[in-house]
Amino acid sequence: MLYLQLYFTGYGLTLEDLAASRSLKSKTPGHPEVHHTVGVEMSTGPLGQGVASAVGMAMAARHEAALFAAGSDHLDHTVWALAGDGCLQEGVSSEASSLAGSLGLDNLVLIWDDNGITIDADTSGTFSEDVRARYRAYGWRVLEIDDATDLAAIEAVLRAAAERTGQPTLVAVKTVIGAPSAKFGGTPAAHSGGFGKEEVGAVLESLGYSPTAELSELVNDEILAHTRAASERGAALHADWQREHSAWEAEQPEAAARWNAFRDGATDPSPLEAIATGSPGDPVATRKTNGAVIKALQESLRLWGGSADLSGSTNVAVDGKPFSAGDPGGEFIRFGIREHAMAAILSGIALHGPWRPFGSTYLVFSDYMRPSIRLAALMGLGVIYVFTHDSVAVGEDGPTHQPVEQIASLRTVPGLDVVRPADAVEVTAVWQRILASPQRPVALLLSRQDVPVLESDGDTADGARAGGFVRWQSGVGTDLALIATGSEVSLAIEAAQALEAEGIAARVVSMPCVEWFSEADRDYRESVLPPSLTARVAIEAGRGDAWYRWAGSSGEVVSIEEFGESGSGAEVMRLRGIHLDAVLDAARRVLRTGHPVP
Amino acid sequence: MLYLQLYFTGYGLTLEDLAASRSLKSKTPGHPEVHHTVGVEMSTGPLGQGVASAVGMAMAARHEAALFAAGSDHLDHTVWALAGDGCLQEGVSSEASSLAGSLGLDNLVLIWDDNGITIDADTSGTFSEDVRARYRAYGWRVLEIDDATDLAAIEAVLRAAAERTGQPTLVAVKTVIGAPSAKFGGTPAAHSGGFGKEEVGAVLESLGYSPTAELSELVNDEILAHTRAASERGAALHADWQREHSAWEAEQPEAAARWNAFRDGATDPSPLEAIATGSPGDPVATRKTNGAVIKALQESLRLWGGSADLSGSTNVAVDGKPFSAGDPGGEFIRFGIREHAMAAILSGIALHGPWRPFGSTYLVFSDYMRPSIRLAALMGLGVIYVFTHDSVAVGEDGPTHQPVEQIASLRTVPGLDVVRPADAVEVTAVWQRILASPQRPVALLLSRQDVPVLESDGDTADGARAGGFVRWQSGVGTDLALIATGSEVSLAIEAAQALEAEGIAARVVSMPCVEWFSEADRDYRESVLPPSLTARVAIEAGRGDAWYRWAGSSGEVVSIEEFGESGSGAEVMRLRGIHLDAVLDAARRVLRTGHPVP
Repeated sequence: MLYLQLYFTGYGLTLEDLAASRSLKSKTPGHPEVHHTVGVEMSTGPLGQGVASAVGMAMAARHEAALFAAGSDHLDHTVWALAGDGCLQEGVSSEASSLAGSLGLDNLVLIWDDNGITIDADTSGTFSEDVRARYRAYGWRVLEIDDATDLAAIEAVLRAAAERTGQPTLVAVKTVIGAPSAKFGGTPAAHSGGFGKEEVGAVLESLGYSPTAELSELVNDEILAHTRAASERGAALHADWQREHSAWEAEQPEAAARWNAFRDGATDPSPLEAIATGSPGDPVATRKTNGAVIKALQESLRLWGGSADLSGSTNVAVDGKPFSAGDPGGEFIRFGIREHAMAAILSGIALHGPWRPFGSTYLVFSDYMRPSIRLAALMGLGVIYVFTHDSVAVGEDGPTHQPVEQIASLRTVPGLDVVRPADAVEVTAVWQRILASPQRPVALLLSRQDVPVLESDGDTADGARAGGFVRWQSGVGTDLALIATGSEVSLAIEAAQALEAEGIAARVVSMPCVEWFSEADRDYRESVLPPSLTARVAIEAGRGDAWYRWAGSSGEVVSIEEFGESGSGAEVMRLRGIHLDAVLDAARRVLRTGHPVP
Repeated sequence: MLYLQLYFTGYGLTLEDLAASRSLKSKTPGHPEVHHTVGVEMSTGPLGQGVASAVGMAMAARHEAALFAAGSDHLDHTVWALAGDGCLQEGVSSEASSLAGSLGLDNLVLIWDDNGITIDADTSGTFSEDVRARYRAYGWRVLEIDDATDLAAIEAVLRAAAERTGQPTLVAVKTVIGAPSAKFGGTPAAHSGGFGKEEVGAVLESLGYSPTAELSELVNDEILAHTRAASERGAALHADWQREHSAWEAEQPEAAARWNAFRDGATDPSPLEAIATGSPGDPVATRKTNGAVIKALQESLRLWGGSADLSGSTNVAVDGKPFSAGDPGGEFIRFGIREHAMAAILSGIALHGPWRPFGSTYLVFSDYMRPSIRLAALMGLGVIYVFTHDSVAVGEDGPTHQPVEQIASLRTVPGLDVVRPADAVEVTAVWQRILASPQRPVALLLSRQDVPVLESDGDTADGARAGGFVRWQSGVGTDLALIATGSEVSLAIEAAQALEAEGIAARVVSMPCVEWFSEADRDYRESVLPPSLTARVAIEAGRGDAWYRWAGSSGEVVSIEEFGESGSGAEVMRLRGIHLDAVLDAARRVLRTGHPVP
């Protein structure tokens, strides 16, 4: 339907594009893809994501208007989204819709294709709820279109929907899937698959065409002249907006200058230089340094985000008020306990731009966000996920709150940079690369527990930004590489120092971002991990299989292969095998015997 | 609160256990853990999971009663669940609550601790919705307890809640978090952290104790005698139930015998033997063979499940009617488009037992289910996730529907068996091991596209059940191992045959389950992959880093490292590097030069 609109309204698609639908390299892939087809504003397909990202777009529009154009609402545009029954069954849309109600997002209109049919069956047995009453309970206004063929009613209701009433609007449109097919109309079979030549003929006939009508009868210059008049109306509306905008610029030159700087500029990284990173040996949780970064970058305005009810313990709290109907310029976002919607909303804010939106929760709960993280990676959105409490060192909260598989599993998402800095110095360094990469989503993994600030030299920040670098080097050569990330880098250095006392020369490679290091040029990578240096131990407090790529078959991996337990963080780390003796034993084994391929 | 109840009601916890809370190996870990503390019926902690699993428990109770004890409702027990504001904000609880309403689960009571406070703030800014109206919209009955200190009201309302009215019941209990503390009551600070000695003293005083009261004043034999009378009342209620049950058994000996067999027995694997697996070369999608397995096992009754609206294309459809209020004996479950709730509900059904519940969707949407899959793995529940459309060979639906990272990322979940059979013979073989492992959750990954039935011999089924085995062996020795899973095994065999024509002797190792193979004894593993056989190529249509563990640093991995595209499945597989030439080139490189560690 979207592709047909883009063709009929002159957005650039051709009849050939439509005929090529779902074929390789066509402009009309099986599900719409942003940055691929002009007029597609978001990649969709996984149900419910669009609803939640539309909430994010509406928040972004409202926030931008409040920040830069108070008194004029020409920046606070209306976001229109279409949803089916399936979208409204998904939890992510429920979460986001509840939040949209609390935020009074009256610049959001959600049009619900209420056809009562999903792929398996009609919805009576699975979705008998009163959707309208549910949305009213969320604080939404509900409008109705009883007949999807009544164009006058559609226009009147959509115009009413755009009015600002203090509430988001659900427009419930009663439709018949597959109409006007007598054979498939109103049945699950209409959802996918072809109607067949005979039924297509019958449909054509019911619409007043010959059952064997050629395409040229259905689409001709006269029809296109009519439909493409939409472009002219759009151009006129755009010109109206431009006049309003120019008037605002003339009246509010300072605000307009700020707005233009915001729109055209990039996030200024200079506040990072002022972040105190402490002295070697200082115990500082990486989440704390990260909190200082977020506070420091707040003035740039480009960084905007919040937390799924863990702003304190994930250290993303900033001064100010939460974004709300009364305070649309609010400095931070309270997402409620809705990790999935948070992630999809962040995508919506990023799609709207030009923010680098961030959202925080504990790493283990990144599981709740995976469908939206995946979609952000697919769309190339510069969302920043702040995931603290990044290992079993979480401790007392026990295995449900202790990530074990999340570091490794996030690394499997193509296009997502998974960044796990070792200390305060690496935290500030990696942010510089993050800010410089607005098309890459980042999962920033941070420790709950204190970790020591490590010795640094002039190359430390560059090394962290390269994704992997030598963080500690024995003075007497290199027999062995210890590769580690995050809180395990200090353990690796401790082990390297102990090994040196035994006469074993190690280097410690901190690899805060495997993706960045993999993309570094070969010479650089081989300077950090020479191919001849086959004695290697990789250390990470999480599932380890993927580390064999770096440790090699002569190497070992010190990792956590099962769920944690409730107890102090230090105890659980030891119990699950992340401790000095484990690293030393692995290092000695690697040097003595090598490690056979399993 | 749960641990206090278990202590006061005599469930086995001691004061020492309470004092040891959150310490290593205590019976009172930071969040309750099933199979660890008597009286804990589910591991909880991640918000919303308990609500959805309670729905599953209520479905299981109702279904069991309908199957075995129609006319007597003594098996259809009431499921009671407690939820906080956070639980009701999570999408998974929304999905499950909507389904519970559609199913008319009047054996479910959800008690909502309506205190209006979450960790960051009060809920007015994020959760202003009318929860009661939302639950009424789902088709629930809503009861109220206005004062959480009014014991008579609590008892009256909970008795009313247990009545069968055709609707699930939400009991909204107005509470004050941290009451009766004057300092912390009603504030987010009451959520966690201690109150401090002074405020504890003030609370004690407000309750009529000395501010420095010793524990022995608060808990003594008189108090315990009172609270532990609950056990006697429970025993009497249990005896009542037992009498009712015995009467039923006497009146309905055949039904009782069936029920006892169901409860005590195991799932009978013998129907698997009759599954037609076709002849070598036959093109059969593994999802199709799996569909035949599910149909064949239906009579055992132990296997019960359904789909998140994809029963047809995931091939899990069985004959009969869907489970519903009118048909509680329904042969299958329609979950609606609610993957996350489906997974949590499956956990509830498994916790209730003795089912092996299954649920299906496309592999890419396993992302929606991860929090519940993780919890099932942590709890050791024998849930079977049927994930079809297991690679970019999905084709036309494009990258949002093409899994790339899901195979690897599911393998990172501790305790989850990820099983990807190569052909019809392996499908039926792995089911035998799945049925014999009722404490292991399984993700069964199946192809959308046809794959050829491969040559088999007497050892094939045993090999598949061992997780990895030699599926094809060159007649002239072994220079090289090609390791593959699922649809890539036939590609590996094709490559091995082509290599044999070049004079290169390969063996093809099918590894349908890395977890099973890893657990096999070393002799067996080394018979399949001898340590001396260092020339190895691993092939899988997904992210490949973890395969270096098996390919070794002399080996190569033929994998997919980026998202797919819309196009025919065969085209996309080729475009993303899964094709004969890629395997042959990798094999030749491995034999010629080895492959340096990166």
